[in-house]
This record gives sequence, structure tokens and C-alpha cells, in this order.
Amino acid sequence: MAGARQSGLEVVVTRNREAPGPFLVVCEHASNHFPAVFGTLGLAPEARSAHIAWDPGALGVARRLARLLDAPLVAAGVSRLIYDLNRPPHSPGAMAARSEDFDIPGNARLSAAERRRRTESVYLPFHAELRAEIARRLARGRPPVIVTVHSFTPVWFGQPRTVEFGVIHDADPSLALAVLAEAKVQTRLDCRLNEPYSAADEVTHTLRLQATPYGLANVMLEIRNDLIATPEAEEAMAAMLAPVLKAALAAITPPMTEEAVA
Amino acid sequence: MAGARQSGLEVVVTRNREAPGPFLVVCEHASNHFPAVFGTLGLAPEARSAHIAWDPGALGVARRLARLLDAPLVAAGVSRLIYDLNRPPHSPGAMAARSEDFDIPGNARLSAAERRRRTESVYLPFHAELRAEIARRLARGRPPVIVTVHSFTPVWFGQPRTVEFGVIHDADPSLALAVLAEAKVQTRLDCRLNEPYSAADEVTHTLRLQATPYGLANVMLEIRNDLIATPEAEEAMAAMLAPVLKAALAAITPPMTEEAVA
Repeated sequence: MAGARQSGLEVVVTRNREAPGPFLVVCEHASNHFPAVFGTLGLAPEARSAHIAWDPGALGVARRLARLLDAPLVAAGVSRLIYDLNRPPHSPGAMAARSEDFDIPGNARLSAAERRRRTESVYLPFHAELRAEIARRLARGRPPVIVTVHSFTPVWFGQPRTVEFGVIHDADPSLALAVLAEAKVQTRLDCRLNEPYSAADEVTHTLRLQATPYGLANVMLEIRNDLIATPEAEEAMAAMLAPVLKAALAAITPPMTEEAVA
Repeated sequence: MAGARQSGLEVVVTRNREAPGPFLVVCEHASNHFPAVFGTLGLAPEARSAHIAWDPGALGVARRLARLLDAPLVAAGVSRLIYDLNRPPHSPGAMAARSEDFDIPGNARLSAAERRRRTESVYLPFHAELRAEIARRLARGRPPVIVTVHSFTPVWFGQPRTVEFGVIHDADPSLALAVLAEAKVQTRLDCRLNEPYSAADEVTHTLRLQATPYGLANVMLEIRNDLIATPEAEEAMAAMLAPVLKAALAAITPPMTEEAVA
């Protein structure tokens, strides 16, 4: 296992770089770090640790999943409020001025120069690093399976959410459908397809940018964050989901034919 | 106009970086340069200047088109036989061992390490540079229109080709159809849709990687290389195609509504 590598600004942290498993785990909303060069966007500490700033628990699950799957992990090192890595640069959500019912003062009326600065210093290096990890595997004939790990808040605009585990797809639903089927068999989670978000909500940018152009199997996982609120709960969730992912991948992988074996 | 910027290995050359026009011109097969670090792949000089090594005339047309359209140009600085930038790293065509009826000795039985080296030193920097040019425009709310410029040989495996101007699309055919319609009105070229190649031949990798994930209008142009065999012919072709592209873009751009104007 390679150790963590961090760029100067820590916008991307890659672990297990040379891990040989078929999966590649991605966590775009891993961090609620606000680097000094960007400031705190006018947010109080409570807002900077709330779900608007990151996906609580997602990094813990993603790290443990990567270990169990023997997979690399590419994770964000800065808050999604600095730049939401799962949004393209022209999306209002990339540097959101409002998130749920919070105003983000430091993102109000952003200048073109500041939008460009964040795009160049956060979005481009993160996705270049992820692209490089994918391309290295393609170059040796081992197309990776892309799994993005997210969490969502159990209460949204005052409404409780009953879904516990959302499985979201972009253009190719095959792995998502297999993960959903396996999760229903192997777990007692309330599992739903394309909930609480779907591609129509613009949440599949990473899949669209990184997996679809190469025809890679891919899926986005959304875990309700009250279920992964401690290290022990993160560990238990990863231990539950790793076999789900392995079985789902096996289910969509064509068996070797006699000809291929011979 | 900004001048040319070249990376250490000259794998990518960008011109007119800050040009304000709506188009972004790309030329993946611009060069028949074989940098010393890669050697000549065992090819004689004649093979290294033949159409298997690059798209003759394409860079000349692309540079002139970029000037006429007030557009940036992102062009390759090395031969497609080192790495074909319009192919993903797992494609046999990315580092082809055979092209038309030529063997490429230096690409026979490439090791995984050499495939990785070329992917990291040619493919990744080129597409990162192109991605950055696109992302900077997206960040200021000006999604660029992607035009890739190619040329093809008039004789292929001994068979003459009558098509003169091919217009090729990937998932979104709208700009390609508009370019074809305008070219038929404005020029006397023998114009064809998805000839002599199409997405099924794997030639739309750049469009798929760079334009489709952002929903950018895009088109691939293929010009028969005997029509652009001199600087004067390149100039004339660019002068013919620039108004075709402008009219095609206007044709697919919705008119401003009264509400939008008000």
C-alpha cells in the first residue's frame, strides 16, 4: 500500500495508489477543510462542520471500503463549499451561494477571477489526479470500476428522510441495479434507486466526466449520515457494503467462455 | 493573441489562449514529431512523414481556422504513432503496432511500463491542457464549442476516396448536422456525414472525453489531405470553412426571446 500523497494545497489525497483490486473509490465531499488561501467564506465554525460543508462519515466509509476492496482511494482535501468537485465549473452549485437554508457569504457575487482561481486550483487538479489513476489502469488493460461514496443528512429542510442507502446511476445503470439487488439481499438497509438524489439533480458529474467516456462500470453510493456517525459505524457500514459491491460486480461480469479459457 | 506555449516534451502546443470567440479548435494529429526520448519507432523517414504518422495539412487548417474564428487552438506536438491522442489508453490504436499497411516496429509488443510512460507523458498532459482551457471558459460562463480538425488520405488500402469533407459526430449530432447543411450550401465540396470514419470506428474519443460530459456543442471535421497540400490550399480551406462553422453555430443557437432581451 502506498501512503497518502498530497498536493501543495491538499486538494486531493490519494491512498493505496498501486492497489490491485478492480475497484477505484472516489470521495469528492470527504473534507470540511478550509485552506487559509480561501478563508472561511464568512461561515461560523458550526456551519463549517455541518453537512453543507462536507459529507460527514463518507471519508471514513470510503477509506475502509478501499482497504477491504484492495482499491485506490481518491478523496478531496477541501470543503465542497470552496469547490464542489461533483459539479462542473459553470454550475451554480460548484461554488454555491446558498446550501439548504444556509447562506454562504464568501460565495455571494463571486468574481470571474475568483471562480477561475478555484476552478484551476481545486477542480482541475482533483479531476486530473483521478483521470491519471484511471488512465494508468487502462494503459495496462485493467479498466477500473468507479465507486463514488457520499453521505446525506437525515433531515432536509425539516423533513426526515427514510431512505438509508441510495444507489445512483448516470447513463449506464448496470452496476447500480446490481448493487441495489445485492444490497436488498445482503442487508436490512432501506435501499432505493436514485434517491435521495439522481442524475437529474446534477449529482453524477464525476461519473459522467470520468467513467462514462471510457465505458467504465460505475455507481454512486449515498449513505444516510446518522448511520455512519462513529468510526465503529463507518467500519460496520464498509464491512456490509464491500461484499455487496463484490457480488454486484461479479453479477455484471460475463463468465469466461470456453473459448476465452482455452 | 497569446503566443505558443509548449511543455517540456512539446506534447501540446496552445495558441490564442485568451481568444474571445465561441469556438475552441483542437488538432490531435497535428504533428509528425518523434521526440528523442521515444526514438523513431524503427520507422524510415518516409514512413515518419506519411499520413500514418500525422494528419498532413490539419495543423495548417486548424491554425488558420482558429485565427479566423478568434479561437484558441490546442494541438499535439508529437506523432500519433507515439500516442494517438484521439484514442483511450486501453485501445490497441492508442499505440498502434500496425497502421494501414505499415508495421510500426517500435510499437510491437509494448511493455506495460512503456504503455504507462506514453500515457503519462503524452495522453494525460494533452487532455489536461485541453480540459483546463475548457474549464476556464466554463468558469466564466462561456461554454466553448469544440471543433476537432483532421485530414484523411485520398487513397486507403489502394482504394480512392471520393468524399472530400467528412463531418462526424458523437452522441449529440446537432452541430454536425448544421455544419453539413451549411457546407452543402456554401461550398462545392463532396460533403458526407460520418465518412470516411464514424464514432463506431472509435474516432470520437476527444469529443466524448472533453465535450459530451459538459454538454458542449461539438463536431469533428475530416478534410481529404490532397485538398490542403500547400499553405495556400490550407488558407483557402480555412477561409471556406470558417463561415460554415459560424453559420452552423448560429443555426443551432436559440434566438433570444423577448423575455431574455428584456
